[in-house]
Amino acid sequence: MLRFLTTNRHKFDEFRAKAESYGLEIEMVEIDYEEIQAPDLAEIALRSAQICRERVEGPFFLEDSGLFVEELNGFPGPYSSYVFSTVGTRGILDLLRDRQGREAEFKSVICHFDGEGYSVFRGSVGGRISEEARGSAGFGYDPIFIPLGHDLTFAEMGPEKNRCSHRARSAEKFFTTVSHAGP
Amino acid sequence: MLRFLTTNRHKFDEFRAKAESYGLEIEMVEIDYEEIQAPDLAEIALRSAQICRERVEGPFFLEDSGLFVEELNGFPGPYSSYVFSTVGTRGILDLLRDRQGREAEFKSVICHFDGEGYSVFRGSVGGRISEEARGSAGFGYDPIFIPLGHDLTFAEMGPEKNRCSHRARSAEKFFTTVSHAGP
Repeated sequence: MLRFLTTNRHKFDEFRAKAESYGLEIEMVEIDYEEIQAPDLAEIALRSAQICRERVEGPFFLEDSGLFVEELNGFPGPYSSYVFSTVGTRGILDLLRDRQGREAEFKSVICHFDGEGYSVFRGSVGGRISEEARGSAGFGYDPIFIPLGHDLTFAEMGPEKNRCSHRARSAEKFFTTVSHAGP
Repeated sequence: MLRFLTTNRHKFDEFRAKAESYGLEIEMVEIDYEEIQAPDLAEIALRSAQICRERVEGPFFLEDSGLFVEELNGFPGPYSSYVFSTVGTRGILDLLRDRQGREAEFKSVICHFDGEGYSVFRGSVGGRISEEARGSAGFGYDPIFIPLGHDLTFAEMGPEKNRCSHRARSAEKFFTTVSHAGP
């Protein structure tokens, strides 16, 4: 049983679906931990894991993710969650209205503490910001993100998102490693 | 001599001018410290001071500040610096273009470590976001912030800003306390 530290039920559901396909089980541990301010998700995730190690017994993993819009110099990036809760998807659309490019990247970083040391697993997916919010599945910026090679937003794709998302990719690397590590 | 931990020359200059009027001298100590993610500036400043205490000998102070736009649910708030470096003042203007209110508040929090304990000093100034960026003095969001009772932006006011700004107010409380504390 792998313990996933998160307060985000959507993330947990995505990880659980992915874990099942590896024959793994995960458990949601709802703790609200401190995050640092940094431009790099891996640095944030690693420091969070170090902080949580003091509070949590034994192995666990956590994840940090963000939407990086090229034309906005990577905004909202590591502060995606705060930006979502204040200006929302509308904020991103408003910011891009008179700008040229709509290229964006969704990134996910998992940090796993195995009881002794830390490992980091990254996943990302390129795409573009839609002209308007579409769809109701998923969470966060899903209604305005169209992954490369698709016409639908993540929020229109439903569970299909879990095959090509940034989080699917970091999770695949992580679960592959864990399921090969043996008992 | 009071030691001010900052990498921001503009902030240092504002504090120095204010300190002089209290007969106090301050020294700029350029260290780049870790900040946490939190909605409250005081929490961020206090945790920063606790982190810096490990790295810095003896007493010091530091400051965190942010612009809180009411219509944007407090955005950019504690992440003002990151938001400025990615979408800039233009970003705030774009976000407000089709919205109703332009009320905003600039907040400053000083955290002083006196060698034994921590004290927090707050200052704030209400105002509104201008329709366009104006003026070239100051830094950050100064060109788009018009303090209450004025028609000029902070960036148009020049040194006059140092009489009514959020930072002037937190600094006045701090320097008043320090100059009465005796040797």
